[in-house]
Parts: sequence; structure tokens; C-alpha cells
Amino acid sequence: MKLNLARFRVTSPRKFKLSDYSCSNTGRVKSKEQAEKILEANIKEMAELQDKMYAHDKWAVLLIFQAMDAAGKDGAIKHVMSGLNPQGTQVFSFKQPSAEELDHDYLWRINKSLPERGRIGIFNRSHYEEILVVKVHDLVEKEKLPHELIHNRIWEDRYRQFRDYERYLYENGIVTVKFFLHLSKDEQKRRFLKRIEDPTKNWKFSESDLKERKFWDEYQKTYEEAITNTASKYGPWYIIPADKKWFARLVISQVIVETMRKLKPVYPTPSEEHIANLQVYKERLLNEE
Amino acid sequence: MKLNLARFRVTSPRKFKLSDYSCSNTGRVKSKEQAEKILEANIKEMAELQDKMYAHDKWAVLLIFQAMDAAGKDGAIKHVMSGLNPQGTQVFSFKQPSAEELDHDYLWRINKSLPERGRIGIFNRSHYEEILVVKVHDLVEKEKLPHELIHNRIWEDRYRQFRDYERYLYENGIVTVKFFLHLSKDEQKRRFLKRIEDPTKNWKFSESDLKERKFWDEYQKTYEEAITNTASKYGPWYIIPADKKWFARLVISQVIVETMRKLKPVYPTPSEEHIANLQVYKERLLNEE
Repeated sequence: MKLNLARFRVTSPRKFKLSDYSCSNTGRVKSKEQAEKILEANIKEMAELQDKMYAHDKWAVLLIFQAMDAAGKDGAIKHVMSGLNPQGTQVFSFKQPSAEELDHDYLWRINKSLPERGRIGIFNRSHYEEILVVKVHDLVEKEKLPHELIHNRIWEDRYRQFRDYERYLYENGIVTVKFFLHLSKDEQKRRFLKRIEDPTKNWKFSESDLKERKFWDEYQKTYEEAITNTASKYGPWYIIPADKKWFARLVISQVIVETMRKLKPVYPTPSEEHIANLQVYKERLLNEE
Repeated sequence: MKLNLARFRVTSPRKFKLSDYSCSNTGRVKSKEQAEKILEANIKEMAELQDKMYAHDKWAVLLIFQAMDAAGKDGAIKHVMSGLNPQGTQVFSFKQPSAEELDHDYLWRINKSLPERGRIGIFNRSHYEEILVVKVHDLVEKEKLPHELIHNRIWEDRYRQFRDYERYLYENGIVTVKFFLHLSKDEQKRRFLKRIEDPTKNWKFSESDLKERKFWDEYQKTYEEAITNTASKYGPWYIIPADKKWFARLVISQVIVETMRKLKPVYPTPSEEHIANLQVYKERLLNEE
């Protein structure tokens, strides 16, 4: 069973329409059980590749998760990434910027959180909020930018900044992959109702979720524009059908495995000098005291 | 099968002798298979407790790993902590301090890496190096402290600073647990030889490992003194028999589970006001458009 990831991938700034992508189509994968079996195998391969990546200590992978509320970002991170060695995995959740963060350029907090070489970095939300929530709610004035820099081409400028940034990251050994968890409006409603009805999930729901839902169409349009303008070979977007959690997790795991495979991580091979020295060290150990 | 953790725990600055603790005794646990079964159950419970801790968002746990080379710190972190949600788990490895770090007090880099509320923080080495390697190799002069502050009572001062710091952390919601992986000198030799003989492990071995091994007795003495002086109820030490990796991992997992259990993490219970509001939100969702 091989998933054809090309179906979900966007790699160039081209005519991209969100409505061309399904929220619920699971293709040839027919059941949750089947999906979980492949997911399990993927997680195992991911852990093996991670072990090599960590030893290799050259490439890092940066996984960016963006979505509407209740689309399953946290669950995907938990279910796909548990099983990895936490020593090689770093998750950062980006919330509303603090006063200190607003006193800096928007990439300041992002740069501080980039994964180290050999590691997998996971961003639960990211700098993409700068062209999503900031645009939808017109928050750019709050960003303390010099007034002259806030003009009507600011979004085009940011798209270019993002593309440049991700190329820079790639050229310096950090491979960016961006996931948009594509949820339908109906499914969001179902999940919200569940959070209201299940007392153990009540804490996950607040009025602000309803307020944000009012901006649904605006967000979809803004995501479409953001994805169109920031898709590149250095920072591909994957549009993940998110109405079925088990399918979303399967596709995400497959993307990660294929991304890591391409880096061909290997355990470091010692130099001939090191190999020769090792024999000397061995003698010393054996003849101790 | 219940492990009696008191056997491994040191909680008060008292007469403590490392030689009273075995490197290889596995008590009533007779086989690797038996240990792995309990480990698996512990990991499952840990993941459940972590989920609640994360939602509860009050207590954090800080796990400090210290040991001689090849004692199995990395392996323990990998095998005990994989299976946790990486979103609630943060690992930091502390290496030789950088020039920027040396320009600060020694806790500066530690404080930056403390786990957030609800998270599990893991330190692979830690500020304890300040009273271990720094003491053994007499590196305190390199720390750029004002000369008047480097005197022969500096270690006693640091022990007190460590005790004070861990009490402060506890009083602010961060529970510290310290593991010393207690490896025998013979077992270290066996593991070093294996790294030399197995080509895929060659990259893990360097001459500096042999150099450090020469200081074995000095390190054991220094660990003994450090543990004696920094054991407290706010920062207990666990002396983990490390010659059998499977037993070390079992004990570590048990310590973590029991530590987390004591925090009694629960999913947040909504206020009556929130519960009442939820019904209003539900109506609004159902009557949308």
C-alpha cells in the first residue's frame, strides 16, 4: 500500500485552490485499522531514520503544523511523533507574541526555536500566523513596525520573506515541511459540540473558539493565498485531509518518512586515522594498570 | 512486582557511601524479559500521567541524568522516554559551556532550559557538572568569577546554592529528580571495547574517553561528595545500578511514574460559570446561520 503524496503536495507558487482538495477523501485506504497498521510501520521507520540523523548530525527537519481550531494538530503531534526519541525531537508552540517578542522582528522567536542539527523540530503554529491571523484580524499595526513599512504591499513582501527564509534554511541544512490540516466547517462543528458535551473535554473549549469560527471563510481565503504564495521546493505545503484523524495521521507520517529518507542519513564512518588509533586505544584498555 | 525505590533513594545530606550501592544487583527482578514487561506498563502509565499533567498545566518535572561515560544516559532517555508526547517533553544536553555561557553565572543556561508548566524536562548532564568535572579538573579558574569569590569553601557554597535552587524550583512548581547511573569500572571497559570493536559504534569513541577514565577514582569520590551534599527532599538522588541496562531503565521508569503519581495531575474541571456558558455556546453552534 503506497500513498501517492503528490496528491497532497504544493511546491510552486501557482494557481492553487483549496476547494480542489478534499477534507475527507481517504483514497485507497479503506479503514482505520488498515491506516493504523501503516502508521505503526511508519513510526518505526521514522525512529530508525531519526537515530541515524542524530548520529549523522548534519541535516535537521522542521515540521510546521498550521490549521483551524480542532483540526487535530495536537493529536497528530502526539500520535505520530510519540515513539521518537525525545532527545532528538523538539516541539515549540507559538501563541500570541509576548511584549518582549513584539519588541523584535517576527522571526526572532522562530530563530531561537529552530531545531539543532540532527534533530526534528516541530512547530505547533509558526511564523505563518504572521500572514494568517495577523492578516485576518488586521493586527499588523500592533506589531510596532515603523509606520513607513506598513503599506499595502506588506503581504506580498512577507510571502517573499518566507520563501527566502525557507531557502536560507534549506541551504544551511534545515529542511522545512509545512502541513495544513484541511478540516471542513461541519467537522469543526461536530468536534466543538463534542468538547462541550464531554465533561473531560470542557477545558478545551472557550468562547474565543466560536468567535474565530465566525471568520471561517476569511481564514480559508487567507490560507489559500498564503499557501499559493509560499509553496516552494524548499518549503512544500501538504494539504492534509483532516476530517478523519486516522487518515490525517497516516499521511503526515508518510510525508515525514519520505522527507527523512531523502536525506539519506548514515552513521558517521570513522576516518582511517581514527580506525588505526582505535587499535591503540584498545591495547591501552586491555593492558590497563 | 513492586520495586522498593527506597533502596535507591538518597534524600538527606547524611553519611552516604557510593560503595554501599551495587552497580549490578537487580533484586527480585530476575530477567530482562520480566523487566521489559514492567517497563512497558510504566511507559504507558507515564504517558497517561503526562497527558493529565499537560492539561493541568501546573506542575513540571525536571529529570537530571548524571553519570560516567558509557553508563547509558542516552539509551535510558531513548528507551524510557520514547512513547511520551514530544509536545510535553523537553530534552537538553549540556556540553562544555560556550564563551557566551561563561560570560554568565552558571545557572544562566540552566534557567533558560527549565521545563514549562505541565511539561517533563530532561537534562542530559546539568549544572551538576559545576561540582563534578569542574572540581575534578580544577576548571573553576576558567569560569571568569571575580577572583575574591574563588576560595577553598567554594564547593560547600555551591552545594548550598544547589540545595537552595532546587527548593526554589519545588516551591515554584518544578519537581527535581536526580539520577546517578552507577556503572562499574569493569563494565565501562567492556562497553568501550564494544565501541571499538563494532564499526557502527566507532564514532562514539574517542581518545578523550580514555583520558577521562584515568580520573575514575577521583570522579567516584567527587560524585559521592556531591550526592552527599545535595541530596534533599526537594531534590532526591537515585543511585541507579547501571551495569545491566534493562534494570537501570526499569528503575528509572518506576521513579518517574511514582514522582508523577504523587503530583496527582487531573484534567482541569470547568467552573460552574463555564459549564453554564457552554450550554449557551452549544445553542449558538446548533442554530448557526
